[in-house]
Amino acid sequence: MSNGTPKRRGRRRGGEDTRSALLTAARAEFAEQGYDGATVRALAARAGVDPAMVNHWFGGKEGLFAAAIALPFDPAVVIPALLEGDPERLGERMVRRFLAVWDDAGGGEFVALVRSIATHETAVTMLKELISTAVFARVTEALGSDRPALRASLCGTQIVGLGLVRYVVRLEPLASAEHDVVVAAIAPNLQRYLTGDLSDVPG
Amino acid sequence: MSNGTPKRRGRRRGGEDTRSALLTAARAEFAEQGYDGATVRALAARAGVDPAMVNHWFGGKEGLFAAAIALPFDPAVVIPALLEGDPERLGERMVRRFLAVWDDAGGGEFVALVRSIATHETAVTMLKELISTAVFARVTEALGSDRPALRASLCGTQIVGLGLVRYVVRLEPLASAEHDVVVAAIAPNLQRYLTGDLSDVPG
Repeated sequence: MSNGTPKRRGRRRGGEDTRSALLTAARAEFAEQGYDGATVRALAARAGVDPAMVNHWFGGKEGLFAAAIALPFDPAVVIPALLEGDPERLGERMVRRFLAVWDDAGGGEFVALVRSIATHETAVTMLKELISTAVFARVTEALGSDRPALRASLCGTQIVGLGLVRYVVRLEPLASAEHDVVVAAIAPNLQRYLTGDLSDVPG
Repeated sequence: MSNGTPKRRGRRRGGEDTRSALLTAARAEFAEQGYDGATVRALAARAGVDPAMVNHWFGGKEGLFAAAIALPFDPAVVIPALLEGDPERLGERMVRRFLAVWDDAGGGEFVALVRSIATHETAVTMLKELISTAVFARVTEALGSDRPALRASLCGTQIVGLGLVRYVVRLEPLASAEHDVVVAAIAPNLQRYLTGDLSDVPG
């Protein structure tokens, strides 16, 4: 929400226009440059607004990314919270957080995400950034794991697959299982991808 | 392919008409009745053709199902082959077979599958049948595992997630990893879902 009257340097726009221009610019810029390659300055320039508007409306680049891909969480808030505590129980915390976030949205937003990746190449690129840079790679790098990129993509298979089976395909008994059931079933597998021994994996 | 002139009892149709009528009927019947509930007799009646045509054109109900959902394999052939050999290496055989089947199709057919589940409720129902009945549940039941339905849905999360990351999102390093790399990374996790100890999972 806007409060106060932030200064503007770019083309003058009303508040909602600014927000909407940033979202449109973000979808194009993240898709072309990737998450890391898209700078706040370039995002703002593309939208024709002052760079300060990114912080003002979205709390930073991560918030803008989350809004652009319609994520129901902000990685800048969630990831530091996940990383607190025992790394050997990170898989459990991630599954729990995943369920809390997407169950809250009734699963509908996950269905929308899958629908968008099936129909828009831009959404595919952004989901790739989400898995490879904005969320999982940040976690595997923060852990100091070996082969962080491989681990991040493996985490992606498990988490995206969980979302598909629970929210899109709605396959029982997983679709309506209690969180404790899903966590106990899946967290150990995710944990292997995060911190397990992958020395048998060639390459 | 048709050879000889099979007898017909239902409405008379040319060969390609029969095949196409069966595919259309199958998509509706499997979606309404589920895989187990859809009988060859009902499928044929819905298509207005003789039940023998199901065997003639598709080698049986499983082949018709595979063709209706555009699967690049026939569960009736693949599953018995998978089940041969050490149950403790079934995860490895499944990942290897999955890669062989879908990589061969250049991943394009997996993308088509995801696109269809994102846009057609019928495809969702059929994917659900695929995971819950036609493939994974048959495997977990053949193994005599405890909690076969839970295990089947867990296998679904891992295998569908692998397909999404490798073929749809095309996330590296997994998207272009050699089969041996993918197998070594993912098979142990799939194996836990197939035969591992799930006694810590409530319910």
